[in-house]
Amino acid sequence: MNIKITCNYLGKILLLVAVLLLPSLGVALIYAEWLPALSFGVTALIMAVLGLLITRIKTDDKAIYAREGFIIVSLSWVIVSLLGALPFVISGEIPSYLDAVFETVSGLTTTGGSILSDVECLSKSILFWRSFLHWMGGLGILVFIIAIAPLGKGNGMSLHILRAESTGPTVDKITPKIHSSARILYAIYFGLTFIETVLLLFGGMDLFDSFTLSMGTAGTGGFALLNSGIGSYSSYCQIVISVFMMLFGVNFSIYYLIILREFRQIGRNGELKAYLCVIAASTVAIAVNISHLYGSFGESLKHSFFQVTSIITTTGYSTTDFNLWPELSKFILVILMMLGACAGSTGGGLKVTRAILLVKSLKAELKRMLHPQSVVTVKQDGKPVERETLNRVTVYFSTLIIISVVSVFIISFAGYDFTTNVTAVIANVNNIGPGLNLVGPTCNYGFFPFYAKIVLIFDMLVGRLEIFPMLMLFSPSVWKRR
Amino acid sequence: MNIKITCNYLGKILLLVAVLLLPSLGVALIYAEWLPALSFGVTALIMAVLGLLITRIKTDDKAIYAREGFIIVSLSWVIVSLLGALPFVISGEIPSYLDAVFETVSGLTTTGGSILSDVECLSKSILFWRSFLHWMGGLGILVFIIAIAPLGKGNGMSLHILRAESTGPTVDKITPKIHSSARILYAIYFGLTFIETVLLLFGGMDLFDSFTLSMGTAGTGGFALLNSGIGSYSSYCQIVISVFMMLFGVNFSIYYLIILREFRQIGRNGELKAYLCVIAASTVAIAVNISHLYGSFGESLKHSFFQVTSIITTTGYSTTDFNLWPELSKFILVILMMLGACAGSTGGGLKVTRAILLVKSLKAELKRMLHPQSVVTVKQDGKPVERETLNRVTVYFSTLIIISVVSVFIISFAGYDFTTNVTAVIANVNNIGPGLNLVGPTCNYGFFPFYAKIVLIFDMLVGRLEIFPMLMLFSPSVWKRR
Repeated sequence: MNIKITCNYLGKILLLVAVLLLPSLGVALIYAEWLPALSFGVTALIMAVLGLLITRIKTDDKAIYAREGFIIVSLSWVIVSLLGALPFVISGEIPSYLDAVFETVSGLTTTGGSILSDVECLSKSILFWRSFLHWMGGLGILVFIIAIAPLGKGNGMSLHILRAESTGPTVDKITPKIHSSARILYAIYFGLTFIETVLLLFGGMDLFDSFTLSMGTAGTGGFALLNSGIGSYSSYCQIVISVFMMLFGVNFSIYYLIILREFRQIGRNGELKAYLCVIAASTVAIAVNISHLYGSFGESLKHSFFQVTSIITTTGYSTTDFNLWPELSKFILVILMMLGACAGSTGGGLKVTRAILLVKSLKAELKRMLHPQSVVTVKQDGKPVERETLNRVTVYFSTLIIISVVSVFIISFAGYDFTTNVTAVIANVNNIGPGLNLVGPTCNYGFFPFYAKIVLIFDMLVGRLEIFPMLMLFSPSVWKRR
Repeated sequence: MNIKITCNYLGKILLLVAVLLLPSLGVALIYAEWLPALSFGVTALIMAVLGLLITRIKTDDKAIYAREGFIIVSLSWVIVSLLGALPFVISGEIPSYLDAVFETVSGLTTTGGSILSDVECLSKSILFWRSFLHWMGGLGILVFIIAIAPLGKGNGMSLHILRAESTGPTVDKITPKIHSSARILYAIYFGLTFIETVLLLFGGMDLFDSFTLSMGTAGTGGFALLNSGIGSYSSYCQIVISVFMMLFGVNFSIYYLIILREFRQIGRNGELKAYLCVIAASTVAIAVNISHLYGSFGESLKHSFFQVTSIITTTGYSTTDFNLWPELSKFILVILMMLGACAGSTGGGLKVTRAILLVKSLKAELKRMLHPQSVVTVKQDGKPVERETLNRVTVYFSTLIIISVVSVFIISFAGYDFTTNVTAVIANVNNIGPGLNLVGPTCNYGFFPFYAKIVLIFDMLVGRLEIFPMLMLFSPSVWKRR
């Protein structure tokens, strides 16, 4: 491990995040919220000083390998979470530091599960910071750094970081240069967030709500501004949010292909087709299953579409208490929680492409058992998939299940019921937010004891960074000096 | 697919099972249960006639490949289940044919979950047949055929069948000749069943109960003779059963090594050590967790040891209603349900060795990500594990999870709660028997609608035959004529 260069990068990240606190500080000043303003200022100062101190650590050995890439990503997420919690504590709006860290991690990892029972008593700037965390975490903090400033010469380091922070089993580089790929990604991200804000403004929502909720949609986060979630807004606004949740769950390289007018290549994309089909089928199935609960079928369809797009993209906004829906609808939502959005989007979960590859791995295994001598190749979108990639997908899925089972085990010590424990872990490890029963959409995570909260914080980070970077923090061989 | 030779083998299996109905017929005659006696006689006759007819299908093309091996195993289990249900229906003791098939599959796959709310009203010979199904299914019907009569010349066919019917990721052949390997396995199986019967007789249990319960223990089945399960027998008998459940969950090749006095090789067996450690740790943890529920710590320890060995070996006997235990203890049991016993035993579940290989796969994957250029080898018991085997284990686990999720989805249509649905599937796909809530140890599966029962029947077969043979029944390419 090249500790010096790792520290140097972590320092740069702290400096960036100090700057990223300024919009929230601005909101606090606009709304004359002096205590929150002070808390943002103090936190930015702490980060800047720490950042400046650490960036002074310099070394001539600039050689960087995969493990430095992984460790920089996982450590920077941990550090930003620990420091990003300070505004909540200093402003006194979340007095417990552990709860504040939970809220920050939930924000950054775009989970959206809260420890607060009442969000309406929070000040505007704190609400803004919560949703800004979603927006920062959505595409990745380090991808943002890559977009604004190249990290060293060549693609090596940036590629390692992009791999560790992006979602999905493989990384599409869009353009050969990582730097410009990251810029294009952030341009699309900005653009879509802007369009959603404008459309919500057209629906009569005020600027603060429009922009803050759009940031939460963009990151597929899910922190709400009202205790009723999204239920109090007009149907127009709910539908706009639904559609944009769906759009932010799509692989961003699809939008780049749209800009390039490469429609034939989009048509070949199996993941996109599967994603849209799953949304359509689930929406119809749930709408039929819940039609007796709402006045009209249109109303059921609206709630169903909202909840399906919210859960499959792992956003976690809600317009109604789906914990009261029939078992079948609830279980469809649990399946969607695990499935997740497309690779290369801001959504969490397993990712549709991994699910497709899992099924293809199974078919290939059956073929291999039937014809032990023959060579079996798996194809996706017309291209052969490497055996290594397939293997990584099954290992990934298995590890996710093992981590989930162990997490439920530890949480069981708190004595809550099976459904609560299982769906709490599923909702956190897949970065959704609400689960069922005691952690349903009208509830929160505040009641869990400290060890359960620590497990769930770990699960959120594991889910967002797709397991391996977080596990490497615990591997002694990673920490060995070179 | 060589359909003719497949039919020929299926015919032979039917003839064997017709003979295997005779012990139950004998029990019926001893206890003067005339209607059950008639039902066993009629069923045996039907099987014999069908078997004789089908074995007349002959062919000169004796070439047999992996797929014939898989299909013979899966089809014979399906056919024996469909015909083995007849005694229940003809005797009138389980009037519904679907329920009778559920009970038969639960018996053969050594699951032990019943659709009956009252087993004490069953006649002795029907109780005997239920437990005899466990005993038949434990080591495998076809392994028994291989033991008594070689199937064709050479090892080819027998090896394919042994692979498809045995448990675990790889098959230890014990001796180079499959025929004698199968004989040794059955000799150990007979021997252990006999010793348990004698020990139970010493405890004052009558011959019928001793022998029938020993068959249920041997197959790690779990059908009880009393509505109170094993709770009404003396502590001595309960402890004997606990110990034997644990013994039948061990890889049978360990016993062969004991006979050969190869103790050093036993000491190197990582799976055995892990299995015993998990039993010890879980027993102590649960005993502490439930100590307030029972009079003394000794009593808690007894119940805990019984339930841990019963669940990890996927037997499913119970001495107490563990559905009333605290959440932590219940969740430990759920983990043990999924973990299962050792490979090469009669137990179900994932198998300890697969769990070990899963964790090793994960570690290897981490290493590969850190050092993309280096070659990473995984070792077990000092020997390198092939990449192919590792890959098969992760695909196996992933497929098991996918099948479980889809099963819970279908069962959700019935509208029962999440815990019931999830643990019903876990308990069936891992061949345990009881789950939690509505399918807890004092409950039964009778209340599920027909489609849920069909799903659970499929799950039991998938679990016992370790997924792939059952899935191949649905692969069109398997059925193509050569």
